[in-house]
Amino acid sequence: MDYKRIKDQNKEHDAVHDDIETSRGKPLSGSANSMVMLGGNSSVQSKWKRKSAVTLALTVLTSSQAILIVWSKRAGKYEYSVTTANFLVEALKCALSLAALTRIWRNEGVTEDNRLSTSWDEVNVYPIPAALYLIKNLLQYYIFAYVDAPGYQILKNLNIISTGILYRIILKKQLSEIQWAAFILLCAGCTTAQLNSNSDRVLQTPFQGWVMAIVMALLSGFAGVYTEAIIKKRPSRNINVQNFWLYVFGMAFNAIAILVQDFDAVMNKGFFHGYSLVTVLMILNHALSGIAVSMVMKYADNIVKVYSTSVAMLLTAVLSVFLFGFHLSLAFFLGSTVVSVAVYLHSIGKLQR
Amino acid sequence: MDYKRIKDQNKEHDAVHDDIETSRGKPLSGSANSMVMLGGNSSVQSKWKRKSAVTLALTVLTSSQAILIVWSKRAGKYEYSVTTANFLVEALKCALSLAALTRIWRNEGVTEDNRLSTSWDEVNVYPIPAALYLIKNLLQYYIFAYVDAPGYQILKNLNIISTGILYRIILKKQLSEIQWAAFILLCAGCTTAQLNSNSDRVLQTPFQGWVMAIVMALLSGFAGVYTEAIIKKRPSRNINVQNFWLYVFGMAFNAIAILVQDFDAVMNKGFFHGYSLVTVLMILNHALSGIAVSMVMKYADNIVKVYSTSVAMLLTAVLSVFLFGFHLSLAFFLGSTVVSVAVYLHSIGKLQR
Repeated sequence: MDYKRIKDQNKEHDAVHDDIETSRGKPLSGSANSMVMLGGNSSVQSKWKRKSAVTLALTVLTSSQAILIVWSKRAGKYEYSVTTANFLVEALKCALSLAALTRIWRNEGVTEDNRLSTSWDEVNVYPIPAALYLIKNLLQYYIFAYVDAPGYQILKNLNIISTGILYRIILKKQLSEIQWAAFILLCAGCTTAQLNSNSDRVLQTPFQGWVMAIVMALLSGFAGVYTEAIIKKRPSRNINVQNFWLYVFGMAFNAIAILVQDFDAVMNKGFFHGYSLVTVLMILNHALSGIAVSMVMKYADNIVKVYSTSVAMLLTAVLSVFLFGFHLSLAFFLGSTVVSVAVYLHSIGKLQR
Repeated sequence: MDYKRIKDQNKEHDAVHDDIETSRGKPLSGSANSMVMLGGNSSVQSKWKRKSAVTLALTVLTSSQAILIVWSKRAGKYEYSVTTANFLVEALKCALSLAALTRIWRNEGVTEDNRLSTSWDEVNVYPIPAALYLIKNLLQYYIFAYVDAPGYQILKNLNIISTGILYRIILKKQLSEIQWAAFILLCAGCTTAQLNSNSDRVLQTPFQGWVMAIVMALLSGFAGVYTEAIIKKRPSRNINVQNFWLYVFGMAFNAIAILVQDFDAVMNKGFFHGYSLVTVLMILNHALSGIAVSMVMKYADNIVKVYSTSVAMLLTAVLSVFLFGFHLSLAFFLGSTVVSVAVYLHSIGKLQR
């Protein structure tokens, strides 16, 4: 039951968490690059190794993200502006992408694929994911009129289904019947693992709440799938350049959010008011997770991303037993079993296609 | 949450319920026979039609069984001896088998396959399922020292797993990888659907409780699989004869149970003390369910039986919303989703074998 606390973030933490999602819309850098290179030299590394490495990185980063959230809650509330933190996450990702590019230019020289300059034709779609996340984050403030925070955590699992459907429609990629069954199980299993004694309240969500939750799930799923489409459209284009442009627009949209939501607070108390060590670590983690998500989109896909972050959620709960003395619920064990079978079926389903 | 009530039977009702399981160890009669014949003339009926008909009958009977239990609880407690009710269920099944046989003898004459007389070689295995259920029912009185009634309902889902494993080992029948995955999902889904706010207590079950629950699941699974082995060993033998002998031993073992547990009550208050209309309906239902189980074992298998009774559990809950105004929990919806996917995967898995 206590495990719920990880997920039952209040509005403020949700915002930070979603900002990670904002960052998820975009991708890659030096540090993540070297993470991938752990598996061996990039040129001899098989595609499979690279895919596994980025997926593992995303899983580990997502797990530690939830751990940081619990830690920050234990340490007490920090009254920092969430919008400034979001902006810094985008700026950090942008800087890391540029650092990676600088190294690449030094080693390989500037080529058609890794040059930073771009055409209107290439760059005009890059603001779309950032804009979608901004709309979703704005909607988030309104949905709490209809659903409480734990209920919202439950409803967020609709993202899994929306990602699957939009992945099929927009990217036109096939999932086998078994893989679809596995995806439904992933959604049911994740939700089951998060059940607590108050979860039934979510069934009393009014119609408007359901509509908003579904719209938000579609926005989030669309942003993810659209990012994959953008990144994969030019397979030879260096991922750091693609990330750079995604993050530039991420910074721009978050700057707007600062002006709209936290202008007074930033003016009166300063940009960094309320920041602590945990805040800095969270920003660092969110930046690296965002880059890992981009890598997963480049070298794997949204489906892998969803499995990776779902497994991370379960890993976090198990880690929390040791770190914070949490108790795992029977629902958690059942949900984990269903998620494990889903992962197995997804891989089996792939082989039989 | 309220739905739990159906399953959270107290000791007394559990005993009745398990007695049904005792009866499940054995098989067939006139009324069930005519139920099967609804699908068309027995000679032209395809195997598939017969299999579907018995499976449907079992599902409907199991659902109404749970409804009767709720009804009897609402009507107040009846202080009848559970052992006498069990005995009557066996006797009724025996009588129904004989009635069916009489009709068959009249129509087809007495043949090698439908004659009642038997050899020691054929009949010597028939007492084994009844004996196993008796041991299991006796153990049931001790497990409540370690687990409460709702916890026991949760642990009973271990039967699903034990049936699958013993089905594989004893009947040496193969399940595909996907069907195994589906079976694990069935168990997880059924347990999820039964979750309520007190379910986590089951995790505190002491070691002895777990051992007893596992032993009971193995006994129950073994009895079911062994009954299937007995019935299928002689495919041409009339199911009514096989049932007759199974039920004769069922009567004998239940007579022992009356002597051991309720001798004083029966002597002082009479055999039928505390009986009501609901009691009579429950005995009738249990007898017909027992016969349906036998038919499923003859024409389908234990795996179909487990799916059928699991789906019945979910149907009952949905029916209870209309009949008793129960509220379905989020856990119930999630568990039902997982069970539905399991049923789908089981059928898909079969095709791909």
